[in-house]
Amino acid sequence: MERLPGFRDFYPEPLPAKDAASFDLRNYIFSKWRETARNYGFREYDGPPLEALELYTTKSGAEILGQLYNFVDKGERAVAIRPEMTPTLARMMAAAERSYKKPIKWFALPQLFRYERQQKGRLREHFQLNADILGESDPAADAELIALLIDTLRSFGLTENDFVIRLSSRNAWQDFFAERNSDPGKAYEFFQVIDKMEREKPEVTGEKLRTLGINSEEVKTFVAGGAPTPELQTVLRHLASRKLDSFVRVDYNIIRGLAYYTGIVFEAFAKGSSMRAIAGGGRYNNLVKLISANKVDLPALGFGMGDVVLADLLLEKKLIPKLSAAIDAFVIIEDEALRDDSLALVQRLREANFSTEYALTPSKSDKQFKRASEMNASVLLRCTRAEGRLACALRDLRGGSQQEVTPEAVVDTVKSLLRNR
Amino acid sequence: MERLPGFRDFYPEPLPAKDAASFDLRNYIFSKWRETARNYGFREYDGPPLEALELYTTKSGAEILGQLYNFVDKGERAVAIRPEMTPTLARMMAAAERSYKKPIKWFALPQLFRYERQQKGRLREHFQLNADILGESDPAADAELIALLIDTLRSFGLTENDFVIRLSSRNAWQDFFAERNSDPGKAYEFFQVIDKMEREKPEVTGEKLRTLGINSEEVKTFVAGGAPTPELQTVLRHLASRKLDSFVRVDYNIIRGLAYYTGIVFEAFAKGSSMRAIAGGGRYNNLVKLISANKVDLPALGFGMGDVVLADLLLEKKLIPKLSAAIDAFVIIEDEALRDDSLALVQRLREANFSTEYALTPSKSDKQFKRASEMNASVLLRCTRAEGRLACALRDLRGGSQQEVTPEAVVDTVKSLLRNR
Repeated sequence: MERLPGFRDFYPEPLPAKDAASFDLRNYIFSKWRETARNYGFREYDGPPLEALELYTTKSGAEILGQLYNFVDKGERAVAIRPEMTPTLARMMAAAERSYKKPIKWFALPQLFRYERQQKGRLREHFQLNADILGESDPAADAELIALLIDTLRSFGLTENDFVIRLSSRNAWQDFFAERNSDPGKAYEFFQVIDKMEREKPEVTGEKLRTLGINSEEVKTFVAGGAPTPELQTVLRHLASRKLDSFVRVDYNIIRGLAYYTGIVFEAFAKGSSMRAIAGGGRYNNLVKLISANKVDLPALGFGMGDVVLADLLLEKKLIPKLSAAIDAFVIIEDEALRDDSLALVQRLREANFSTEYALTPSKSDKQFKRASEMNASVLLRCTRAEGRLACALRDLRGGSQQEVTPEAVVDTVKSLLRNR
Repeated sequence: MERLPGFRDFYPEPLPAKDAASFDLRNYIFSKWRETARNYGFREYDGPPLEALELYTTKSGAEILGQLYNFVDKGERAVAIRPEMTPTLARMMAAAERSYKKPIKWFALPQLFRYERQQKGRLREHFQLNADILGESDPAADAELIALLIDTLRSFGLTENDFVIRLSSRNAWQDFFAERNSDPGKAYEFFQVIDKMEREKPEVTGEKLRTLGINSEEVKTFVAGGAPTPELQTVLRHLASRKLDSFVRVDYNIIRGLAYYTGIVFEAFAKGSSMRAIAGGGRYNNLVKLISANKVDLPALGFGMGDVVLADLLLEKKLIPKLSAAIDAFVIIEDEALRDDSLALVQRLREANFSTEYALTPSKSDKQFKRASEMNASVLLRCTRAEGRLACALRDLRGGSQQEVTPEAVVDTVKSLLRNR
């Protein structure tokens, strides 16, 4: 039996098979995500991976249906496996924001699911760092969030030679549109055209703009001018105070595809020929209101960063460290008459929080040595009985030293050996 | 909009609402699970939460269908959200076991989903610690796995007054049945009767046994006798070497409901009136063979422990520690002219891996102090400019001391203050 196409198995370490993922690498990415978010004072939350379908259609319209894992459950509810985290966050906030002091700074590492039409190597799930600030409308919050995005990427060793944050404003585009078209109902259609502009032929974009009554030369001039709005100026100043301004540039080509953005929007791009988007986000001041049916009005902003694109970039830049499993101690059992004593020793080491291994069944010494070394054990222990007394030889596999210790002294000796690393 | 019944939102900290879960508590449970599994040399893996439906029906028969979140995806595949982890593990093993030295010791913390018929408070998802040993048929592996189960429960502060491992053997019951009924096809039906025996009226059990040609008095005698099989004797001896034998007792009332168990089986029970099962597992030597259509023959055993029952027990035993969020540093900004300098300081502290907070927008000093204290900050920083020079006051909120430092010395001073904790 096979796994479903577009899904990953996470074996503990990278396997030769090219389509297998590694839990160690996932864990490395998660640790960095968590560490940086916590340094920024963000708190972790999570929600259910299954939600009512309308939570997603309310926010994104029926257009999202084609990409959803949606079905009717045994209780006749229309449900969907989560394609993104923001609707869940908005729902949770609508229910409980009164319990929290503002601003609320939260992050989550959800696994997200989209039924993308079959393309070779295209995944149908990925993990995402989602970070959000709620309850603060000042652009200082936008600067704080963008700083987190930059420092998250930096924590992996990426520099300003590797990525850039393209900073833009839905407001600026909103104003641009309102001056040229009197039908606000057409604004989202216009945003979609701008969003696809970089990937489409100029003639196609030009034609679409024409039907909206917009002159494509004016669009070009607006993008080329790139004058930052007052909000964007505040963000740039706050980033400069942190010496992070060299990581950003105002770029009105960015507008973000999703319907619900309301203010500053941004995308992190890998530099170089591919210019892949690594992360993206922005303000969504009206979403909590929408989800709560007008009961809760909470300004908000956030970004998402996926693990697959990030891992590809780190691999390309040779920034994935050697992730090798290791244990603290391996207890060699050379004489089966000493198995019980050796098991007692294993137990004591584990109770002292040392990861400890041994051969479950009788096996030759050299095989046990080999296993200890494959497992990257730090210390090797071997007990013998002489004149009725148990004595243990403790070898430091990193330092190379060896010493005799009583079974009672083993834990303390291992402690002092490993603490000095 | 509401979340689906039977699902949990994980707010960072416990909320007043009684049906809300806490990410901090989940994280506490996960940390202990991971720590103990690693001490035992287990490596973490994961698989997709969505699998082909037949992965589950092959193993458990069509009877499982009523409890599954199953549907047909947009590519016409019959799929199900995972109700348990073992089939995924067996599938991964069938594909890649040749890359691994035996025994393979793996664990995972999957979220699992079952569509249980609506009962008040009954959940439809939970997280589980799944630990498995593959490639070793000796009962030494059973002892190692049961020791891990015991030490996992002990890591939460639970003692032999709180729980017991009831140890049994499918083999013993298999032999019992074979001596009395010549139709092996009826064995599973018999196991089901034994599995339900403790929860059913003796007359009902008696009647069911009678139709299988089994005398219920003989069943009673067999259970009461409880003579350990040679396998169970080995397990008991190995646990005694670790001084863990007081946590187990042979109890043939246990047989485990699932079809695929083949050898030793066990359940961890909370002591006291409720006698809830906290965890359960056993040998499933034929499952990998079944999933791989006879290509891979790998003896295996494992257990699962759910987070919901465990958390309830810890709560009842008052064993949940106070989980309070804390940050390292809070930078007070009293003079908006110093915001840029203060932001630079915040950035330096965060880059040195200290979780650091500040007020995003201008706010009164006492409000900022209050916020710092609510956030459990360890140190408080406040900068002033005198004669053109920036000076920072650093207050140790735990120790109570205060000192003046230059902005350049802040990081090192915070380091030495927090390192001495």
